[in-house]
Amino acid sequence: MEQQPLILVTNDDGIFAPGIRALAEEMKAFGRVMVVAPDKPQSAMGHAITIHSFLRLKSVDLMDGVEAWSCSGTPVDCVKLAIYKLLGGNKPDLLVSGVNHGANISINVLYSGTMSAAVEGAMEGVPSIGFSLMDHSIEADFSHVRPVIRKVVTNAMKHGITPGTCLNVNVPRDTGVPLKGMRICRQAKANWEDEFETRMDPNNNEYYWMRGEFKSQEQGEDTDVWAVENDFVSIVPTQYDLTAHHTIANLNTWDNALG
Amino acid sequence: MEQQPLILVTNDDGIFAPGIRALAEEMKAFGRVMVVAPDKPQSAMGHAITIHSFLRLKSVDLMDGVEAWSCSGTPVDCVKLAIYKLLGGNKPDLLVSGVNHGANISINVLYSGTMSAAVEGAMEGVPSIGFSLMDHSIEADFSHVRPVIRKVVTNAMKHGITPGTCLNVNVPRDTGVPLKGMRICRQAKANWEDEFETRMDPNNNEYYWMRGEFKSQEQGEDTDVWAVENDFVSIVPTQYDLTAHHTIANLNTWDNALG
Repeated sequence: MEQQPLILVTNDDGIFAPGIRALAEEMKAFGRVMVVAPDKPQSAMGHAITIHSFLRLKSVDLMDGVEAWSCSGTPVDCVKLAIYKLLGGNKPDLLVSGVNHGANISINVLYSGTMSAAVEGAMEGVPSIGFSLMDHSIEADFSHVRPVIRKVVTNAMKHGITPGTCLNVNVPRDTGVPLKGMRICRQAKANWEDEFETRMDPNNNEYYWMRGEFKSQEQGEDTDVWAVENDFVSIVPTQYDLTAHHTIANLNTWDNALG
Repeated sequence: MEQQPLILVTNDDGIFAPGIRALAEEMKAFGRVMVVAPDKPQSAMGHAITIHSFLRLKSVDLMDGVEAWSCSGTPVDCVKLAIYKLLGGNKPDLLVSGVNHGANISINVLYSGTMSAAVEGAMEGVPSIGFSLMDHSIEADFSHVRPVIRKVVTNAMKHGITPGTCLNVNVPRDTGVPLKGMRICRQAKANWEDEFETRMDPNNNEYYWMRGEFKSQEQGEDTDVWAVENDFVSIVPTQYDLTAHHTIANLNTWDNALG
């Protein structure tokens, strides 16, 4: 009997979020499913890991036929615990992260725990894909996301994913307009213009709530921002080699002697 | 009278770490110094930001002639609060982060709060540099790092830093051997082989401590790992565009239709 592929499922919204349930359900058609996800929301945790405290795992009854564990740590902790604790150092055949409640287009890939888990998977040599839906609502409808998941995973299993990279897949909110297809994109240049809402606590000390506004800095039709604004699913191949290779020649013209 | 450059100083080891003191002291020769750094150690926090809770700032008497604030959040929170709260949306002329107690070579750039603060600076269009010393000891000696800081900052102020990038500077531990110079490098490919030490709490529930071993996967003499192992300071230009541009053509051969 042929061994089924082992598929690791994680996210950053926590193991009881609707998005990860939809994702795990879809994965059952592709292989044996193991869910290891945070026991509480861990959005915007980026690539954080837990080094100053300990971690816990707890077996969870999530759905029939799926081994599921909640983890006290970050999304990247979940990937590490899955591989090096639960699987004894063996790598899954595929890692999928999400479906994130909210977009991870453009620079949000850096803040996202969901995408950082996929990046960690890539660092471990595991073909990895992060899925996000551009809808923060806890009642978001994932039914139009399911065919996207099936198509991307089928493609990835057929063609493989280039080592050193993972895929960042963003799906527009369901507005009734059918999706036009999937577009391979680059990450749009953007930043967050933050605002800090200042409040006063009962002891007359100030505290601040962060409220950012996302500012895209370009109009390129090859970007993920353009794609999702035009009813396409965006797929950005994402790498963890951050080297800005194009600037090395210039930096070599600096005076780099010491002493 | 000419306006002095404004230099924002942050780190992830916390505002009272020796490394940030050395860095802030050196910056006084280059301009007006503002320190905004975490009120406690925030190592390995990556690009995490605080969105589910509030933030606080507290004025701190760190050293003569330096405005200093401790922040309850992550290193990236510190950058955001500095720019959008304390500076009212005005950008500093330079951001320096560190000196980190411990190396941030290779893939550690992704886990590092110190480097994520520098990356956030780059995202805000601020010339940004992260400095790390390959010595975790709280009693680490930063005196051989100071000339490196002065040289890199002088270079950066003279030549500028390419927009969309920041610099990741790693300094070997002082072993008595003089540093051979500074080398412009690429980020070495590596991963962490993690081990989870299992313990039992007084209630007979398991908990785990993460203990990783860093595994470099290559021998290239153009990498940061090679440089610091051979008595060079490594400088890796680091970008926040994670797009794996080299894989886009291949992904366009996939069947990307929907429905």
